[in-house]
Amino acid sequence: MEKKKRYFLAEEDIPRYWYNIQADMVNKPMPPLNPATKQPLKPEDLYPIFAEELSRQELNQTDAWIEIPEEVREMYKYYRSTPLVRAYGLEKALGTPAHIYFKNESVSPIGSHKLNSALAQAYYCKKEGVTNVTTETGAGQWGAALSYAAKVFGLEAAVYQVKISYEQKPYRRSIMQTFGAQVTASPSMSTRAGKDILTKNPNYQGSLGTAISEAIELARTTPNCKYTLGSVLSHVTLHQTIIGLEAEKQMEMAGEYPDIIIGCFGGGSNFGGICFPFMRHSIKEGKKTRYIAAEPASCPKLTRGHFQYDFGDEAGYTPLLPMFTLGHNFAPANIHAGGLRYHGAGVIVSQLLKDGLMEATDIQQLESFDAGCLFAKAEGIIPAPESCHAIAAAINEAKACKESGEEKVILFNLSGHGLIDMAAYDQYLAGNLTNYELKDEDIQHNLDEIKDL
Amino acid sequence: MEKKKRYFLAEEDIPRYWYNIQADMVNKPMPPLNPATKQPLKPEDLYPIFAEELSRQELNQTDAWIEIPEEVREMYKYYRSTPLVRAYGLEKALGTPAHIYFKNESVSPIGSHKLNSALAQAYYCKKEGVTNVTTETGAGQWGAALSYAAKVFGLEAAVYQVKISYEQKPYRRSIMQTFGAQVTASPSMSTRAGKDILTKNPNYQGSLGTAISEAIELARTTPNCKYTLGSVLSHVTLHQTIIGLEAEKQMEMAGEYPDIIIGCFGGGSNFGGICFPFMRHSIKEGKKTRYIAAEPASCPKLTRGHFQYDFGDEAGYTPLLPMFTLGHNFAPANIHAGGLRYHGAGVIVSQLLKDGLMEATDIQQLESFDAGCLFAKAEGIIPAPESCHAIAAAINEAKACKESGEEKVILFNLSGHGLIDMAAYDQYLAGNLTNYELKDEDIQHNLDEIKDL
Repeated sequence: MEKKKRYFLAEEDIPRYWYNIQADMVNKPMPPLNPATKQPLKPEDLYPIFAEELSRQELNQTDAWIEIPEEVREMYKYYRSTPLVRAYGLEKALGTPAHIYFKNESVSPIGSHKLNSALAQAYYCKKEGVTNVTTETGAGQWGAALSYAAKVFGLEAAVYQVKISYEQKPYRRSIMQTFGAQVTASPSMSTRAGKDILTKNPNYQGSLGTAISEAIELARTTPNCKYTLGSVLSHVTLHQTIIGLEAEKQMEMAGEYPDIIIGCFGGGSNFGGICFPFMRHSIKEGKKTRYIAAEPASCPKLTRGHFQYDFGDEAGYTPLLPMFTLGHNFAPANIHAGGLRYHGAGVIVSQLLKDGLMEATDIQQLESFDAGCLFAKAEGIIPAPESCHAIAAAINEAKACKESGEEKVILFNLSGHGLIDMAAYDQYLAGNLTNYELKDEDIQHNLDEIKDL
Repeated sequence: MEKKKRYFLAEEDIPRYWYNIQADMVNKPMPPLNPATKQPLKPEDLYPIFAEELSRQELNQTDAWIEIPEEVREMYKYYRSTPLVRAYGLEKALGTPAHIYFKNESVSPIGSHKLNSALAQAYYCKKEGVTNVTTETGAGQWGAALSYAAKVFGLEAAVYQVKISYEQKPYRRSIMQTFGAQVTASPSMSTRAGKDILTKNPNYQGSLGTAISEAIELARTTPNCKYTLGSVLSHVTLHQTIIGLEAEKQMEMAGEYPDIIIGCFGGGSNFGGICFPFMRHSIKEGKKTRYIAAEPASCPKLTRGHFQYDFGDEAGYTPLLPMFTLGHNFAPANIHAGGLRYHGAGVIVSQLLKDGLMEATDIQQLESFDAGCLFAKAEGIIPAPESCHAIAAAINEAKACKESGEEKVILFNLSGHGLIDMAAYDQYLAGNLTNYELKDEDIQHNLDEIKDL
């Protein structure tokens, strides 16, 4: 079979169903709990915050395949399939016998994979008569995606952007505003949750957990307004499986099957998105594939966190979720990979990690930018700081192949480009970036605070 | 035929030849002249500055098809074909019966069409034993492309970036530096040309003409270093015909043929790139197609300039070129479309305009951003300020179709995305951008200065 550089699917071959791994998991994720009653949640309990169909998808543990609505598929066709790229340039730069492929989600109009779920969430909201949507955003990738998706389906969007990203990446704010969204730096004085946090710590630079609290509060207090989330939740990961489902067909076109699949890890949606469709073959057919989540060393919920029930947000507005967590009060260091600054992991990936079906590795900030710059020079694409973590992990595996002489097939998800993150690259090039060493006692301190949840 | 949203070519259908319209023109461009002797230039005269093969391509008026070297084709395969997109969203937003298509060059790794020529120029330099390349850049799109292409072929790159863009778009500088290039704001004190200009006007914000002078001077005074240019010249436009050649095949896949083709206009290379392959059918078969160059109202060489011999740069280092020009001393207003701030038009497009084979329209800055924001909301892609001019012209034509009820087919080139230009969008959204009214006497003043060239 002739090897090409890029593989695309014909429009008619773009998948028509998302893959719900919950249906195939032997040990299902434990249920989210009502924090007051400690009773398992039903979909109805989520309706006040989320669109009803999204609430049902969230807790669906029986249907392996969920049909993608036609309106969403029509929008997917504007940028999907995204290319599967053989990274010959990176292979050459590393001198590795490994075959490295990446799924290039950075070519979506808004520059990342986030649009895959934003379109779905905005569509279901519109269909159910919602007029306003609200959300949080870290680096701004999700906020930009939701802002555009809201515009597509005629909804108003209000976005709480983590303050550190709002300041580090002002252009993401401009992008959201260009799409017509209202953008507020979080923590803000516009919500009870924001006020409480600012009162305690006036200089707090924000976190995804805080911004989530603010957005949920706005959704709760605004008529006809629903909250949407860019990662962590199972329905978000469900929508992202379009990445892996396409990649599966494209790897077949390339005549190879991945030995190792890697995604960067914030809440788990891009990781799950690329891995889960392949993982079904591991679960059902015993296919030997390694799945590696690459998380920042400064926010290491998978490698150093604890598996237990915890809140998904800072203020404790969400249900209790069974997750690997650093504690919902954990304040991550101000790394530039804003999208990975989240204290917990989604319930599906948490269960999979607990069951040994996947691995996790932590990457320091400098290593991530080393990898990003090497990739940029080799492949011409400047990766998002988040995606740099996946690249770093892929490089580590490719180097191991060089050591061992093994010709492994490595696939990673290039979740987004870093063109709005050039200030971070600037600081890296100027030698002003640092690593962050996290002490065990600091982690333990936060975990102690949640041990009775 | 079923209408799709995006059309791609299979890797094996990507064109293997560039199209050289000079061979088919009835009235060939007049020759460049040696400014001292006023004698027509031969390719050898250009060898001190340009790679030899590029010098030959520049003056080639006989071969209609120039083979794309295999090494360049291999690199094209990493991002080509670029998609041809049916802009259903924009059509709907305008309520026009017109069918609007755009060729999306913004998906190239560096975000614009510029890579098409950068790869070719870097390749020929490398092949001829050159070790260093230098160039100018306005908005930074070309500089970023050349920086990456230099890295691909193992060359060192030094880029003079127009000062206004260097300051307005610091992230483009970071991108070039990430690819390993040296970047200097122009005018600089590092060249005679820069010093002379800064002595006369210490606050001069630079122009492409000035940056070209500086880069040429560096190439002349550095061993084994060649100059490269991002537009204007005929060999650059030649390389960009890959855009139109692909679009021609893709329009055929869509089952349509364009009535109107539009490109924004700085020096002419993206415009010529998309138009010339179609124009050959107008020249040879009398096909009725309108070709519209969209230039900024503040730098209107096509609509208000004069056709005559002029220098291509500020300092007068280049040959004399027969071009529509505003005079090489023309200092364009500080519009955000930095790539269009050039005083002259390439010799081919100048001849074609003179002969009535194409048209030109001028677009004010605010109109261009109005169009860009409408397009962003409708199609999800934030266009480069340069490309906004093409979009504005396309919208004008689509509105005319709405008036007349005609179902015309409009094709424009989306030459690049605007993700590094968000500061400009910020100012637009804040109401801080202005139009620039150019007085006839100011144009005449500059033209008087060059009337004896």
